[in-house]
Amino acid sequence: MTTTETAAGNAEDQIRETIDAFMGAMKRRDIDAIMSFYAPDVVAFDVMPPLSYVGRDAYRKSWDTGLSMMFGPLETELRNLKISVSGDVANCHALNRMAMNMENGERMDSWMRWTWCLKRSQGRWFIAHEHVSFPIDMETDKALTTLEPEQ
Amino acid sequence: MTTTETAAGNAEDQIRETIDAFMGAMKRRDIDAIMSFYAPDVVAFDVMPPLSYVGRDAYRKSWDTGLSMMFGPLETELRNLKISVSGDVANCHALNRMAMNMENGERMDSWMRWTWCLKRSQGRWFIAHEHVSFPIDMETDKALTTLEPEQ
Repeated sequence: MTTTETAAGNAEDQIRETIDAFMGAMKRRDIDAIMSFYAPDVVAFDVMPPLSYVGRDAYRKSWDTGLSMMFGPLETELRNLKISVSGDVANCHALNRMAMNMENGERMDSWMRWTWCLKRSQGRWFIAHEHVSFPIDMETDKALTTLEPEQ
Repeated sequence: MTTTETAAGNAEDQIRETIDAFMGAMKRRDIDAIMSFYAPDVVAFDVMPPLSYVGRDAYRKSWDTGLSMMFGPLETELRNLKISVSGDVANCHALNRMAMNMENGERMDSWMRWTWCLKRSQGRWFIAHEHVSFPIDMETDKALTTLEPEQ
């Protein structure tokens, strides 16, 4: 293994730990911990409108709204997490099952698609871009919230 | 400017050219040209189901279906394209207006969110991961296809 490969391997471990810690913050519904993973200038394409959130302060409002719509524990399960890293830039994507009880009494239990683009700053990895979505039924324009991963 | 910064600047130019050429292939609706930008093992989170496409051959079917649903010219307009690159890994994201006439007589004219994660192989940049989506109205589960960029 070359030095470069070792460095990339170590960075991949760091990123996996970062994503694990981020998921932990989500499960605890700890808004301050969640927000600490985002770069100040994060651009987020969230499952909820608008088209994009620019900046951590703007994006915090979406998280506030999302977290206030649920109660009790949040379950998450990542599948097919794939990480690519070079130097201070990294990309990862995964399918993420999120299950929770909603304030309106409904139960949500859906697989969503998550993409994270990270950058390293002062030795720490931050989420510089996040994209979360459901696929759409093109006939009805409805989000497909009950799909299961094929693998 | 350091050597590293110059290299990153050149790579950013290459990626901008790659995305420009990719958009050109889309406008021409040239399926072979479109597919030539994807890595063989691309993982795509498309606007249409399933949750993910794994591999260029699988993803080509989605493009085939999408292109067969429209006729005449495809208009596209990228806004807020942001590129991050380090070594052989890069990511970019943008809002992309796509306007087209559909086979069923309807006109589609919508802003979508696009994220591309790229890798360089033998001097060329390939799309290793693509994520395309609409935000969702959480009350109705409907895709929000008429939103305008706020900036």
